[in-house]
Amino acid sequence: MRILVTAACAASLFASAAFAAEDPAAVARDFQARASNGGLAFEIVRSLTTEVGGRLLGSPGDGVAVEWGERKLKELGFANIRREEVRVPNAWRRISERAELVGVTRQNLRIAALGDSPSTPEKGFEAEVVRFPSLAALEAAAPGSLTGKIAFIDTHTRRARDGAGYGEAVVVRSRGAPLAAARGAVAVVIRSIGTDSHRFPHAGLASWGQDHPPIPIGALGNPDADQLARALERGPAKLFLDLRTAVAPATSYNVVGEIPGDGSSDEIVLLGAHLDSWDLGTGAIDDAAGIGITVSAAKAIAERGAKPKRTIRVVMFAGEEIGIKGALAYAEAHKAELPKHVAAMEADFGAGPVYRVTPDPSLPAALQTSLRSALAALKVEAGSAKAEVGPDLGPIHAGGVPTIGLALDGTDYFDVHHTEDDTLDKVDAVAIAQSSAAYATAAWLAATHPEPLKRGTSGESN
Amino acid sequence: MRILVTAACAASLFASAAFAAEDPAAVARDFQARASNGGLAFEIVRSLTTEVGGRLLGSPGDGVAVEWGERKLKELGFANIRREEVRVPNAWRRISERAELVGVTRQNLRIAALGDSPSTPEKGFEAEVVRFPSLAALEAAAPGSLTGKIAFIDTHTRRARDGAGYGEAVVVRSRGAPLAAARGAVAVVIRSIGTDSHRFPHAGLASWGQDHPPIPIGALGNPDADQLARALERGPAKLFLDLRTAVAPATSYNVVGEIPGDGSSDEIVLLGAHLDSWDLGTGAIDDAAGIGITVSAAKAIAERGAKPKRTIRVVMFAGEEIGIKGALAYAEAHKAELPKHVAAMEADFGAGPVYRVTPDPSLPAALQTSLRSALAALKVEAGSAKAEVGPDLGPIHAGGVPTIGLALDGTDYFDVHHTEDDTLDKVDAVAIAQSSAAYATAAWLAATHPEPLKRGTSGESN
Repeated sequence: MRILVTAACAASLFASAAFAAEDPAAVARDFQARASNGGLAFEIVRSLTTEVGGRLLGSPGDGVAVEWGERKLKELGFANIRREEVRVPNAWRRISERAELVGVTRQNLRIAALGDSPSTPEKGFEAEVVRFPSLAALEAAAPGSLTGKIAFIDTHTRRARDGAGYGEAVVVRSRGAPLAAARGAVAVVIRSIGTDSHRFPHAGLASWGQDHPPIPIGALGNPDADQLARALERGPAKLFLDLRTAVAPATSYNVVGEIPGDGSSDEIVLLGAHLDSWDLGTGAIDDAAGIGITVSAAKAIAERGAKPKRTIRVVMFAGEEIGIKGALAYAEAHKAELPKHVAAMEADFGAGPVYRVTPDPSLPAALQTSLRSALAALKVEAGSAKAEVGPDLGPIHAGGVPTIGLALDGTDYFDVHHTEDDTLDKVDAVAIAQSSAAYATAAWLAATHPEPLKRGTSGESN
Repeated sequence: MRILVTAACAASLFASAAFAAEDPAAVARDFQARASNGGLAFEIVRSLTTEVGGRLLGSPGDGVAVEWGERKLKELGFANIRREEVRVPNAWRRISERAELVGVTRQNLRIAALGDSPSTPEKGFEAEVVRFPSLAALEAAAPGSLTGKIAFIDTHTRRARDGAGYGEAVVVRSRGAPLAAARGAVAVVIRSIGTDSHRFPHAGLASWGQDHPPIPIGALGNPDADQLARALERGPAKLFLDLRTAVAPATSYNVVGEIPGDGSSDEIVLLGAHLDSWDLGTGAIDDAAGIGITVSAAKAIAERGAKPKRTIRVVMFAGEEIGIKGALAYAEAHKAELPKHVAAMEADFGAGPVYRVTPDPSLPAALQTSLRSALAALKVEAGSAKAEVGPDLGPIHAGGVPTIGLALDGTDYFDVHHTEDDTLDKVDAVAIAQSSAAYATAAWLAATHPEPLKRGTSGESN
C-alpha cells in the first residue's frame, strides 16, 4: 500500500515537474482521436497487403516489402531510415502440394506443406494413414509401428483471447515430425493449428530433431481433417501425398526509422512488428496489422507537436515467420546499443483492440502507474502477471530490454492466421485505431517520462 | 371470408371422416420427435459427403453417388428402387486454373472456372483488366471497347433469407460472358455470386449466346475481387489467366424409391432433391442436405405405422447443377404419369430450418389449411404468395403438378454455396431435423388427405 502511494506521488511529482502535468487519460484520448481521424493504421495495412501481398522471406514479395517499408517511412516523415541486412542460408518455399483421400473415389483434401518440409518422392506416393488424437498418443506408439505409414496428428486448437490454445496445440507442428520419424513414419499430416471451420490449411514452421532425417509434413484445414477422421472411423484409409518444396539462400532486411527525441535522444523506445508474412495470404492480420499499428503510433507521436525527449524507433523485422531471423540479427547488430533501449513494445497478434497492459516490473513505478491509468481510458485493463514478450522482442528482452506488454484481442486471430484467408477484409478499422492509440499512448508516456529509464537501476524504486 | 370458413369446415369434416381426426399440429410434433431422435437427415448428409464427396455429373464421384443412393434407399427399406437414365452430350469438367495479378510482384488470386467455360489458350495469357461495377455498366460499354481485354464484373451479392440477392446477382454469371464477348473481350472474371468474405470462389454454370464464340470465364472469391478492385483504383492492372477445362459425353441416373401407398397407391406425392453437386466441395448444403431431408422424411412416414393412402416417391435428381438435366429427363420419362403426381416438394436450399409454407392454390383448401396449422407447430409461417418452385420441380410443375413450397432459411446459404467450403461442418443438426419433420408432415398430410387430389378439379373448391 505504501509503495502504491509512493508511486502515485512520484508520478504526479514528475509529471508536474517535467511535462506540464499532462493527464495520462487525456493523452490516451488525444491519441484515440488522432487514430480515428484518417485511420492511418488501417491505410498502412491496405497499402502493404494490396501493393505487396504475400512476403515470405526469400520470395519476390519480401524484397518488394522492404522497398515498400522504406518508402512508407519516408512518405510519413520518419528520420534515420535504413535497412539492416538479414541473411538466411536456407530460405524455404512451397512449389506445389496435393493430397487425396484414396477410396472408391479420390477426394481432394486441401493441404499446405509446413515450413522447412522436404518434398515427397517425385510424383508423390500413397500410404496408409494412422490417426493419433494427440501428441501423447503418438509418443506412446512403439518404435517401428509406423514403418511405411503416414501419421495423422488430429489435435484441435482451443479458441482463447490470449492465444493460449495456440500455445497448447502448436507443439504438434514442432514435435510431430521427429516423433513420427522415430517410429518409422514416411510423412506426417496434422490438423491445422487453427480455430476456424473453413477449408484453409494453416501454414507455419515445422522442425526435426537431430536423430532422423526430415520427413515431409503438411497441414490439413479443419474440415479436411474432419473428413479424414471420419473416413478412418469407417476403416483403413490411404492418402496420396505430393508435396514439392525447395530451399535457397536469401537476403532480407530489417527496416528501421525513427522519430528523433529531444534531450535524451540516444535513449530508444522501440516499437516493433514484422514485415514478412507467410506465403499463402496477404499477411493482413499477421503482421501488416502490427506494421500499421506501430508505424501509425509513431507518426501520431511525431504529429503531436512537442518532441518527446527520447527517440521512438520503429523496427519492421524481417523473417519472423521462419524463426525470428530479423530479431536475432537486430539483437546482434545493436548489442552495444541495447542498454540504451529503455522500453520496447511489439504488435504481432492481429488488429486488436488492445485489452490489457502489462509493463515490465523493472520500469519505474510512476511510469507503470501512468501507463495503466492512461490506457484505462481506452478500456484497457491492467495486467497482473509478467509482461508478455512477443517473438521479435525475445532476443533483446533476453539482452535486458524491458518491455511494455500490450495484449491484442486474439479471439478470432487463429481463424485466419497463416492461411490464404489472411486478407484485408479481416481487419477491423475501429479495432486497429484503438490499438494504434494504445501503442502511441504507451510509447509517448515512455518517451516523455521524466525519471531516468535505466535498466536495472530505475527499476529499483519498485 | 366465406371461402375461408367453408375451407375450415371442409377440413375438419374430411379429417374426422377419414383419418380418425388427427390433429395436424400433433402430426407435426410427432414427426419433430422422430426427426430429432436419431437424426437420420444429418446422418444421411454425413454418409453422402464422407463416402462420396464431390459428385459433378460426369465425374467418378457421380457414379459412386448413384450407387450410394440405391444402396441407401435399400438399407432404409424403400420399395421400387430404380435408376432412370440421364444422358448428357457435353459434361464439363475443370482440369486446373490459375490467376495472377501482375504488378511489381505476381499475386496469386483464387479463381474457379465457371461451368462450361472453355480453356484459355495453352499456357494462359496476360491482358489488361477493365472493371464494371454492374452488368448495366458492361452493357453500356461500346462495341469493340474491350478488344483484347479481360472484363471484370464486380457485383456484390446481397444476403437475404429467401435468396433474393442471389437472383439479383446471378445474371452476371449467365449474361456476363456474351455481353463482354460482344464488346471484344477475350475473357471475363466476375466477383463470385456469394455472400461470404473468404477466399473461396463460387462455381456455377455460365452461358453464352449464339452470336459470339464462348470466351473463358472464371469467378474470384470476394477477398480476391476486393484485391483486384483495389489494384484497379491505383491504376491499370493486368491479369494472367490459365484455365484448363474439358467436356465429354456422360451418363448419369435419377435414383427413385418409394413408400407405397395403400388405397390410392397410383397417386404420387413426390419428394425431390438433387444427388449431384459442384466439384469443389463435398456438396453438403447443396444438396446432400436436401437428400437427407427428403429421404429421412419419407422414412419417417414409413415408420409411422399406418400406411398413407398415396405413394410417397423420393427422387434423387441427376445433374441439377449443369442445367436440371435429371429433372428434364424425369418430366419426359414420366409424362404419362404426371396427372397422378398430386403434390410435389423439393429441398434444395440448404439444411433449413423451414420458415414458410406455401401450398399451391390448386390444392384443396382443407389440405392447405391443415398444412398451415400443422407446420405452425414447427414455427413455420404461412406464405401468402404463390408457392416457390425449386429448380428440379420446374419441368413437372410446368406439366401441371402442384407444389407445396417449404422455404428453407437461406440466410447463410450463399456463404458456402458452390464452394470448396460446402462441407459437413456447415450443416446444423438441429435445423435439419426440423426441416425433415416439416417435409414429413407436409408429405404425410398430402398423402393421407381424404379429399381427391386431382389437378384442376380438386382445386376448384378454392
